[in-house]
Amino acid sequence: MNQRYPSVLLENAVNELASLPGIGRKTALRLALYMLRRDIGYTERFASALTALRKEVKYCKVCHNICDDDICGICNDPRRDHSLVCVVENIKEVMAIENTGQFRGVYHVLGGIISPMDGIGPADLEIDSLVRRVANNEVKEVILALSTTMEGDTTNFFIYRKLSTYDTKVSVIARGVSIGDEIEYADEITLGRSIVNRTTFNDSIKQ
Amino acid sequence: MNQRYPSVLLENAVNELASLPGIGRKTALRLALYMLRRDIGYTERFASALTALRKEVKYCKVCHNICDDDICGICNDPRRDHSLVCVVENIKEVMAIENTGQFRGVYHVLGGIISPMDGIGPADLEIDSLVRRVANNEVKEVILALSTTMEGDTTNFFIYRKLSTYDTKVSVIARGVSIGDEIEYADEITLGRSIVNRTTFNDSIKQ
Repeated sequence: MNQRYPSVLLENAVNELASLPGIGRKTALRLALYMLRRDIGYTERFASALTALRKEVKYCKVCHNICDDDICGICNDPRRDHSLVCVVENIKEVMAIENTGQFRGVYHVLGGIISPMDGIGPADLEIDSLVRRVANNEVKEVILALSTTMEGDTTNFFIYRKLSTYDTKVSVIARGVSIGDEIEYADEITLGRSIVNRTTFNDSIKQ
Repeated sequence: MNQRYPSVLLENAVNELASLPGIGRKTALRLALYMLRRDIGYTERFASALTALRKEVKYCKVCHNICDDDICGICNDPRRDHSLVCVVENIKEVMAIENTGQFRGVYHVLGGIISPMDGIGPADLEIDSLVRRVANNEVKEVILALSTTMEGDTTNFFIYRKLSTYDTKVSVIARGVSIGDEIEYADEITLGRSIVNRTTFNDSIKQ
């Protein structure tokens, strides 16, 4: 449908809003009209928060997490276990794991996973800097916490091979039936893996 | 959940994005990270399109539609029938009616409907300017195209009373079973009204 907008300014704003992933043209128009109803300071704050993020954001020089300084709050925290490094795809996983409150180690953000279909190879990711961290520092264990997709498994294996020359333990996060899920409805691969990787009952109630 | 963000800049951007209607914090984070992956010019264009809309947008002095000049393209068009004024709630309805290609008259955008629950009275809407248009100009017919809610019906009736002293026809758009809808599934009120307001078969095939 070749929708006609009564104003070029409105059309530009709708085009920009609709360029965001998951926002269609109808939603974009609704958002643009919402901004027109709010006071002018609202749109100014909105626009400056986004440009400030894009222009001034920094990435931690150690773990490549998003931060406001050269080293992020987690890497700078002396109470965290710096010998335990959890490898994740992106900062969303860092936030998800931090929210569990269960992990007291540090992170390494790859910035993606190996995906030949999307033209992403190992050189595009922060894998070399992970190897350097393992080579230079006292990293006792690297925990791989990537998605269980073909790309995630490929990346896991690539990192495992790269780290195999070092005296560092490499582990992956446990996969199994989610807590609260009914066994009956769990998919076969997950259920199978959760039986193979069973833990002793005593260990499970300690957590 | 008290989600911790690794960066204040990111948190500000997520807060602003999540202040939009229908955008939750998870979606807001996804959008902010999407902007970080795009080049810096993308976010600059995005932000400037929104501020330009908010700062420079104008409203037509005749019909109060959004436009880039003092008078909108529709009110300025000599080929349109300026004696036929369609009253709508907002510019979204103008765009919807324009897209049908069936209306050759002009519009009057109220900027809302009477809604005592939201504190919106007749004085907050462009009703007086509608009455002035009817009083000053050669308006032959006013078509009310508001929603069939209690607020819409109230507004319809208020406008009808205001215009009753003038020699102008006041009509409302037809309500009935949507084209393509099955009669069986139409709601009772719509179906009842479409029977009461039936048209002769000859009229219906002319359209």
